[in-house]
Order: sequence, then C-alpha cells, then structure tokens
Amino acid sequence: MLYSFRNDYSEGAHPQVLQALTDTNLQQTVGYGMDPLCEATRDLIRRLCNAPDADVHFLVGGTQTNFIVIESLLRPYEAVIAAHTGHVNVHETGAIESTGHKVCTAYAPDGKLTPALVESVVNSHSSEHMVLPRLVYISDTTEIGTIYTKAELEALRQCCDKHGLFLFLDGARLGSALTSPENDLTLADLAALTDAFYIGGTKNGALFGEALIMNAPNEHFRWHIKQRGAMLAKGRLMGVQFRALLENGLYFDMARHANEMAYRLRDGIAALGYPFPVPSPSNQQFPVLPNTVVEQLQAMGYEFEIDHAEGDSHTCVRFVTSWATPEHAIDTFLKNLATCK
Amino acid sequence: MLYSFRNDYSEGAHPQVLQALTDTNLQQTVGYGMDPLCEATRDLIRRLCNAPDADVHFLVGGTQTNFIVIESLLRPYEAVIAAHTGHVNVHETGAIESTGHKVCTAYAPDGKLTPALVESVVNSHSSEHMVLPRLVYISDTTEIGTIYTKAELEALRQCCDKHGLFLFLDGARLGSALTSPENDLTLADLAALTDAFYIGGTKNGALFGEALIMNAPNEHFRWHIKQRGAMLAKGRLMGVQFRALLENGLYFDMARHANEMAYRLRDGIAALGYPFPVPSPSNQQFPVLPNTVVEQLQAMGYEFEIDHAEGDSHTCVRFVTSWATPEHAIDTFLKNLATCK
Amino acid sequence: MLYSFRNDYSEGAHPQVLQALTDTNLQQTVGYGMDPLCEATRDLIRRLCNAPDADVHFLVGGTQTNFIVIESLLRPYEAVIAAHTGHVNVHETGAIESTGHKVCTAYAPDGKLTPALVESVVNSHSSEHMVLPRLVYISDTTEIGTIYTKAELEALRQCCDKHGLFLFLDGARLGSALTSPENDLTLADLAALTDAFYIGGTKNGALFGEALIMNAPNEHFRWHIKQRGAMLAKGRLMGVQFRALLENGLYFDMARHANEMAYRLRDGIAALGYPFPVPSPSNQQFPVLPNTVVEQLQAMGYEFEIDHAEGDSHTCVRFVTSWATPEHAIDTFLKNLATCK
Amino acid sequence: MLYSFRNDYSEGAHPQVLQALTDTNLQQTVGYGMDPLCEATRDLIRRLCNAPDADVHFLVGGTQTNFIVIESLLRPYEAVIAAHTGHVNVHETGAIESTGHKVCTAYAPDGKLTPALVESVVNSHSSEHMVLPRLVYISDTTEIGTIYTKAELEALRQCCDKHGLFLFLDGARLGSALTSPENDLTLADLAALTDAFYIGGTKNGALFGEALIMNAPNEHFRWHIKQRGAMLAKGRLMGVQFRALLENGLYFDMARHANEMAYRLRDGIAALGYPFPVPSPSNQQFPVLPNTVVEQLQAMGYEFEIDHAEGDSHTCVRFVTSWATPEHAIDTFLKNLATCK
Repeated sequence: MLYSFRNDYSEGAHPQVLQALTDTNLQQTVGYGMDPLCEATRDLIRRLCNAPDADVHFLVGGTQTNFIVIESLLRPYEAVIAAHTGHVNVHETGAIESTGHKVCTAYAPDGKLTPALVESVVNSHSSEHMVLPRLVYISDTTEIGTIYTKAELEALRQCCDKHGLFLFLDGARLGSALTSPENDLTLADLAALTDAFYIGGTKNGALFGEALIMNAPNEHFRWHIKQRGAMLAKGRLMGVQFRALLENGLYFDMARHANEMAYRLRDGIAALGYPFPVPSPSNQQFPVLPNTVVEQLQAMGYEFEIDHAEGDSHTCVRFVTSWATPEHAIDTFLKNLATCK
Repeated sequence: MLYSFRNDYSEGAHPQVLQALTDTNLQQTVGYGMDPLCEATRDLIRRLCNAPDADVHFLVGGTQTNFIVIESLLRPYEAVIAAHTGHVNVHETGAIESTGHKVCTAYAPDGKLTPALVESVVNSHSSEHMVLPRLVYISDTTEIGTIYTKAELEALRQCCDKHGLFLFLDGARLGSALTSPENDLTLADLAALTDAFYIGGTKNGALFGEALIMNAPNEHFRWHIKQRGAMLAKGRLMGVQFRALLENGLYFDMARHANEMAYRLRDGIAALGYPFPVPSPSNQQFPVLPNTVVEQLQAMGYEFEIDHAEGDSHTCVRFVTSWATPEHAIDTFLKNLATCK
Repeated sequence: MLYSFRNDYSEGAHPQVLQALTDTNLQQTVGYGMDPLCEATRDLIRRLCNAPDADVHFLVGGTQTNFIVIESLLRPYEAVIAAHTGHVNVHETGAIESTGHKVCTAYAPDGKLTPALVESVVNSHSSEHMVLPRLVYISDTTEIGTIYTKAELEALRQCCDKHGLFLFLDGARLGSALTSPENDLTLADLAALTDAFYIGGTKNGALFGEALIMNAPNEHFRWHIKQRGAMLAKGRLMGVQFRALLENGLYFDMARHANEMAYRLRDGIAALGYPFPVPSPSNQQFPVLPNTVVEQLQAMGYEFEIDHAEGDSHTCVRFVTSWATPEHAIDTFLKNLATCK
Repeated sequence: MLYSFRNDYSEGAHPQVLQALTDTNLQQTVGYGMDPLCEATRDLIRRLCNAPDADVHFLVGGTQTNFIVIESLLRPYEAVIAAHTGHVNVHETGAIESTGHKVCTAYAPDGKLTPALVESVVNSHSSEHMVLPRLVYISDTTEIGTIYTKAELEALRQCCDKHGLFLFLDGARLGSALTSPENDLTLADLAALTDAFYIGGTKNGALFGEALIMNAPNEHFRWHIKQRGAMLAKGRLMGVQFRALLENGLYFDMARHANEMAYRLRDGIAALGYPFPVPSPSNQQFPVLPNTVVEQLQAMGYEFEIDHAEGDSHTCVRFVTSWATPEHAIDTFLKNLATCK
C-alpha cells in the first residue's frame, strides 16, 4: 500500500491519547465508566458544551451509539426520519430496525434534512395503521461531507418542537464539521439545539469512543447501554481518551489538520480538471475520475472507497483525510495523479 | 482506596499489551478487523486451538459476545439453557431477551450445568406452546469460581448431540480456569467440544476484547456483529492485543499469577478461620465474614463485592485477583484482616 | 371421542352469540373496531366495571393480549414478575421475550403471587446490570384453578404502588373466577385495583375475543395493536359478541354452569377416592389418578390433558368444563370412572 | 350512511359461511387448528393448489400473516424487498421492522415489482455493513388494484432463484385478482411459483382468516404462530370457513361479483367524464374527482377512502366493491354522482 485515503480510522490513536492511557494504566478504578477519570471528563464536556445539566455517556462506536440513543427515546411504534443517505438507513445493517423501529427516509440531494423534508414525512403518517415518526436523525458532517449551519439547525429545532420530535445529531465526524471554514456552530449550540448529539472520537484520533451529550430525560439510559452490550468494563479508557482530546483543544487541532489536508487534496485534484459534483467543506472529498485513472491509482497502491459509478466511463470516489495524514502524502499523490491518463 | 479486590478489570492493560498497541499505532490498515494484524492473530488462535477450520472473531466485551453468538445461532422460538446463576440470566440486563430469546434456567448449586440438568429443561418443553431449548450456555470459570473438567464437558457435549443442542462456553475468565491446578482442559479441547467459546481478554490483561472461536457454521456472523453495533472500526486493536497475549504465553502467565494470588488470599483467610462454603479453584474467592469484619475492611479502604447476606450477622463477599495483583497487597490485606474482630 | 374435558374452547360459541353475529351480519360498518357496535359495547363494559374513564379494547386471543399489554407498558430494560406457573412464563412460546422483555419468576405453590413473592424479585434487582422488574402479571383463575380474594388483590395493589409496578390481570378464565363460591371480587374491583385486566371471551362462550380494560395511560395502544397484527379488520365481531355475552348476564350464567359441572365432576371423582392435591374452586380440576385408570379412560374415548406424572404409577390430570358441558356427560363419565381399576 | 365503498370488509360474512359455522358449532374438537375440520380443509386447499406437499396454515389477518411469514423465513440481518406502495411498507405500523427486519423499497409506479426493480435493490447491498435483501414481497392485487400476469410472476421467480431470494405473495385480495378478466394465473401457478402465498378470506366473504400455502421448508412455523399470538384457540373456525368458501367455488363467485360491480362502477364514472390515472382490473377503483364532487358525495352519505390530493382542486379517491355490493347500490350511486357538479 502506498497510502490509504480509505478512512479516517486507518491508524491507531494520536500519540497524546496513547500516552494518557499509558499514564493512567495501573490506577485501580471501578468499572463501567463510574470512575473518577470518567467523571472528570464528563464535567469537562459539560463545561465545553455549556450544558451543566446534560447527561454525558461514553460509548464505543457510532452504530452502537445511534441505535441505543434511538431505541432509548422511542416507543415501539415510533420511527426515525433520516435522509435517504443517512448512516442509520444505509450503512448499519439494519441496526435501527433490529431494535424494532422503522427508518422513514426523505430524498436529500445534499445529504441534509430540512424542515420541509421532515414535514413531508410527518404529514404522510396519519393513523394507527402507520408508524409514528418521532425522531429526526441527522449527522454533521453528513455522509457526503456537507455540514449544517446554525440557521439550518435552528430551523430543524423549531420544526421538531412544532411536531413533537426529538432531534438527534450523529457527530461521528463532528470535529471536521466544527473546524470547517463554513461552520458557524459550537458545541454549546449543539447542546442547546439537539436532544442528543455526540462528539466522535473514533474518526478523530481516539482508539475508539463516542462522547454522547443527552439533554432529553433518559433516567435509565445506563440500563439500555448494558442491555445492548455497550457498557465497556474498563469504561475509564474513554474518560481518559476524551480528556486528552478535549482538555487542550487537541480534538479541534486534529480536525483542522484533516480538513486542511482535504482542501489541499481537493484543490490539487480540481486543478487537474476533475470535477466535484457535490462540494464538501470537510475531510471527505468526492471527485469524479475516469475509470482508467481510478485503476492506475489503485495499481500504484493507493486505497480509497468507490462511491458510485457515474455512467460507464467515470467513477465518483471518496478520499478521506485525518489527523494523521501527512502533507507529503497529499503532494506525492497529486504528482502521481498528474501522471494518470 | 487501599486496594480493590472488586474485579479483575480494575487496571488498564498489561504493559506488553500497551506496548504492542504503541508499536503498531501508525500503521495504516483497513478497518473492521479485516486487516493483516487481525488475520495473523486469527491464524495464531486457530493453531493454538488445533482448529484450522474454525472462524475466529474479535468482539469488544462479554455481554456483547454472549448475545450476538446466541441470537446468531437461534431461530426466534428457540431458547437458551443456563444455570440459574448464569451471567446471561442475571447480570446482562436481559440482553438475551432483548434479542427475543428466553433463558430457561436450571438450579445448579455449584454453578455448573450437567446433562441431567440440561435434560430436565429439555424434557419439560414439548410443543409449539413452549419455547424450544436449543443452546446450552456455560461459563468456565463459572460465576462462582468453579471450573469444568474435561469429563464434565465431554458429557455435556454428548448430551447436546443427543438433543440437537448447541454448546456455547463463555470464557470471560478462561485464563483463570485453564491455569487452575484442578483443570485438565486445553484450548484444543474447548474447540473440539463446543460449538463456540471465547478467550476473554478484558478480565485477563487486555484493554478490552474477547476472541471468539466458532465451529458452528455461521456464514453471515459479521452481519450480526455489525447489526448489533459490535464491529469495532479499528478492529485491529484486538488483533494486536491478542497477539501480545497469546504468542508467548503471556495470557496464561498472567492467569496463573492471578490464581496464585487468589490461593494465597484464600489460604490466609482460611487460616484466620473464615469459611468458604463453595470452594473455588480460580481467581474469585467467596469467604463468609462477620458483618463487623466487612465493615472494618471497608473502613480501611478495601473494595470488594458483597455477594449475599448469610443470615443476619454474616456476609458472603467476593475477592477477585488479577494479573496486576501484587503479592504484597495480599499480605498487607491478610495482616489487616487479622486485626479485625 | 366420547367426550372431551380437554379444554373450555372445544366448541364454537354459545348460540346467542352466533345469533347476534347473524343478526348484524349485513350491516355495513367501518373496520378495526371503530364502529358503533364496538363503541356501544365499550360503554357497556365501562358501566359494568364502574370505570367511566377506562380504555376498552377488543383483542382476538389471550397470548396476543398478554404480550401487547406488556410491551405497551414496559420500556426495553423492564421486566415482568410472574408465578413460575404463569401462562406468560410457560405456555406462550416466549411471546414476552420475543418483544424483548424478561419474565422473572417466583415459586408460587398455589399459582398465586403475594407481596412477599413480588418483593423477593424486586429486591434481587439492584442495578443497571440487571433488568428492572416493572409489571406484575397474575391471572384469575390461575393456571391451576385457584382464585384471588379481594384482600389478596388489594395487598398486591399496595405492593405495586409501593414499588412503582404495574399490575396486570389475565382474565382468560375470569368468568369462572368471578362466579366461584369462594370469590368476593367484582368487575368494578378489578377495574379499581389493576392497571389492566381482561374479560376472557374465548374460554367462556365466544367464538374468540378478549375485552381489555386499561386504566394505565396508553394513548397509542392502537398503534401497538396494529403493529403486532392484532387489529381485526372486522373488529365489530368482538363488539357484537361481548354485547351478547354481557348485556344480560349470559357471560356469568355460562361460567356458573361451567363451575357447577366442575364441582359435580370433582365431587364424584373424590367420592371414588381419588385425591386433588391442590383444591380448585373453578372450572379446572386436577385429580391424581392411577396410570391404569388414565389409560382406561383414554381407551373409552375420553379426552383430557395430562398435567404431570406423580411418581411412577400415578398421573395428575386436568379436567376442564365449560358453558357447553352437559350434566349427563359428567354423570356418564363418573359411571365409567367407577368401572376403572 | 347511504352506502360505504370504503372497504371489502364492511359486512360480516357470506351467509353460507355463517351457516357452516352454525352447523359445526357444537362439535367438540381439539384446539389450535389441529382438528379434523381444519385437516380436511388443508387437504382441499392442497388439491386446489396442486401442491400435495405444501404446508397449509390458517391465520387470522393479513398483517399478522405477513410479518410471521417474513420473520419465520429471514435471519436477523436479512431484509424484505417491496414496492414503495407495498402494504408491509406503508400500512402495517412497522410490523416487519418490529420483528427486526428492514423493508427495502423500489419505486413501482403501477404497484408491481419487476426483476429490474428487485435487482436494483439487490445490487446496492454489498457487504456486512448493509442488510442482506432476502425476500421479495408482492401482493396480487396490488395496493392500487393492479394484478400480476403469469409471465410477470415467472420472471420474478427466475430473478429470485438467481439471487437466492424467497418470493412471498400477499393474497389479501387474491379472489379479485384471480377472477379478473386480465388474469391468467391459477392457484396451482401461485403454489408453483412462490415460496409462500395466501388466499385472503377477510376481504372476500369470511368473518376473518387467511389461508397460507407455504412451500419453503418451515418445520417450526407453528412455534412462530404461537409466539406471535396468532394461534387461534378455536382454529377450526378458519377450517370451517375456508371449506365453505372453497369447496364449491363460492370464493371465486363472490370475487367475480365484486369485480363486476367494480367495473360497473368504473364504467359509469368514466362515462361521466372522470379519469382513472392508473387503470385497475379489480375490485378497487381510483378515479380522480373534483373536490366539490367529493364533498357532495360525502354529504349524501357515501363513504369511501381519500387516496391522495391531485393538485389543489381534485382528489384521487378509492371505491371498493365486495361480494356484498348490490347492483342497485352502484346504479343509485351513479345517478347521484351524475347530479354532482
């Protein structure tokens, strides 16, 4: 392999995160995230979110977090509203349905839900013969790299309030969203505007872990976590990691770097004349390349995801950068791409 | 806290495990456990188990592993047979039931199922008005520290074959079981006699992780893992840890140490005249102490689990040792215990 | 077949019930139980129960009613408390578990739960590592024919209030219970003391149908009914049947007849010297007969259920009478039994 | 109410069906559909379907049948393919999802799936990160009244075989489909071409009941039925009804009448100049009427379903006829419609 742009979790963790784990390794603590290390990090997160009353929980991964939050908030006949590209709709092997809930989709070309899209779903569900849409699922960044503005999120919040809906934001790539030049949202905004959201660690420098901030009352959420096999015995590992990520801004520094590498890549590819049908201001970039170029890149040893075919001769591919992507990997790639025909 | 005997996951990981994570940290790999690091460890485990055709999967925790194995093997109307003390029956917040399956229990005073107990459950289920028992769940060590002999496991295997039952062994504390002086089972025996079992990492020196060895055909097991939110993005972390644990016997060395510390503790407590109603040959010890002694130990700063009251004046408590328990912690404890009245 | 004492649903419906269906057959109504026939019967039931604010729903069968009520009231981590002989624990193929909920059992020799039994379950569930018992399931009559007194039900209600538990009474055989000489409960008592209970039609003269009286708030219960496939298109069939059963006391007349036939049978069997280990004041009778007698009765063409073996030479069998059992069938049976050796 | 075209289950049962229930009312039988009345009807159905080895089961309603068949055939990670208008997708309150399975939809303008539509779903599901489509759900007639030809069904069968998919046909309105002039399918064709299908009784003259013909191996299907609360205690009621419906062709006579009334209605409405955007050869008709006309009809006392708005001024409505629809009801309606403006 020459270099992998396949994902933002191709390496282990940022060295400072590993060091924090090493530093605390032999401390004895109680299990299951009830230890002082986790408690302190929960406090830190509440401060960063300006949300002194929020519940903070640490979970291992994104799919796990998504379905546990959703099943904890919904009654059996209630359903999720998601963009057709939503992670919960496409890439989680029916995890939401496995907990009994339907995912109702709206077609969102840029991956973002709007009040109008939400209402189109709500209005088509009218009786006990249909599910009752109850929770709006969005992600920031979206599956196709776009991000929400504060105005957009406020509009969704208003729409949810009007229709009695929960608003849940999947922040698996929240670092990239919040450090994008186009972003005007803060952690405090997210805490104020959503019922639940999470700060994704897996895709931004942690070994694993998602920090969930929950405003919706959910007294027995730890019962849900345990029942679904998501209560890590050594829960402290997430407390330690998120402290390392968040106490001195490392989380945002890493995400900013990932974005900068993504823009350098984007600009270089665009300079070679290849189009980006959906512009992305974040660490996922989706150019359309001739199939021959795709094959040459693969033959060189580059790894990346195929998103979809664009006609017979072209392919939309996905390049992802991360905290670990070195500038020279971008520059070498661009030089190599320039040689492709 | 003076010292915690609360659990065998009170610390992080064995330093060699952490070192292995550090050494591989910046390698780029594909996600979800499909990387070369995991592949190599799977091969290693197959060799250690003398099971060249077994499937090996890495999962994050025990409850997760238990319910995913079980729901992957059972049809909706099929049920589990477990000892009344079985972890899946008592300590997993109904995880098995949350996947739709009943846990049928048999009263097993020493925590171990026998063919007679299994058959008492099978024989009381006779028609479509009842669930169909289909899988026998056991653990080694059991919840109360006892272990299975090879003869006992062979008898269960025969019983399962006779009645068309799967045999699944929870090995959360398998290290302690296999290094007990009373043990005559090997990894190869377990692979030969069960349909699935796992080598527990969380409770024996890993940060987290259970290595599942599956002999039952289960072509789409990875679909189950993903649907249940158990597919770790950086799956390689488990491949790396289990290689560190297993390639040079560290796993067994640690378990042997934990056992030795347990016996030192047991013998010292017994020498002070306190009884152990159910003898345990493993790293969990269950003495009965006067309530006054329990309170004095707690006041000193010792942590341990209360198992159950024994009448009004005594309590059965649980002490757990681990790879990290230093000999001097035992000796100091015993000295302190000797001062209690 | 000479005569079947196998069950109280061996025939169709009481002729007056069939006639009511015939009389209304060609009326056009809306579906799903929203028709005027059902509405009127709901009002009738509320009056009979002195429960003007209760919700009344009609469901087709008992297992269906049990699991829909339970899953509608519980959150995923919550569990049922039932006697070990409870219908939901033994005879419903894990229906409760199929909706995700554990059934926690207490050993109740006479089939009846008590506050002490309920509390023994509640007190053994203490943390997020265990399910949270939340609903007490009882039936009147019980599986073994016993009935609850008003004092017993009041005590259970108090216990439930103290521990925040729902109290749900399965009334599949409620007619037999309420017309037993030992009974001192009324429909109004049941409505006042339970969160939900039902008046069983299937086992007392209807073609099918259970009338559920629900006091617990359950705004979207019809969504649950529909989702579980239990919303009968021609829901009116149950409105019509329950009107026929309840508007002139037919329901109680039939149950009283069933009980009288049961006592006639019981007294006749007892007079022949056969014991009834658990006395039953209702339409199920459980004598213990020599195996040779059981075989002779079967050879004559009598049908009845085998309950369980009592040692090697005797069997506890179950005889059930119904609204349709003619007196001469009892007398002939007793004459025939007298000839057995 | 003047007349209801709301549904084909607005009345009770055909008088011959009621008579058959009356005739057998006092026969004693065993419960749960294991009685001789059901057995004989199962044999009759196997003969009519030329399927001597098929399993025949009787279930109470359509939603129930749909989800039990589907959950009995699928493994947890497997999914259904349905038209976007499919009953299981829209009108069953997420019943399929409540059993854990995703419904993947394809946009089918005429309500019918084709091999191309099926393959578009299959081809977009490629890994363990997605559900595995495994069962094709169709209905005949469809939700919008269209029907499948034999060639179309054969093509779907081939497609299913190619991709390892089950083919399940919802026959809630199968009578109307099979007696349509455009139909060329027989019961024997359906048995030969599907893995499971059902003959709907509820919407064609029974009090209730669907007769399921299952070719896919499903040894423990009765366990599924019971677990889902769908095993009717007096299962014989369905055996009796389906014998009355099927032994002398009553089922088809009734459906033919319903269709003829539908065509009479359709032709009369069309003669008044109102369009039918999607032609229907069956007992559901979907004309587009001016909103003013809709309101006038409602004011007269006609009942029918609103399907959807067609712009601001018009509405697509649904008229359904049945075995019970008298010719004069059609003629009077048409006269009344002619007076609307």
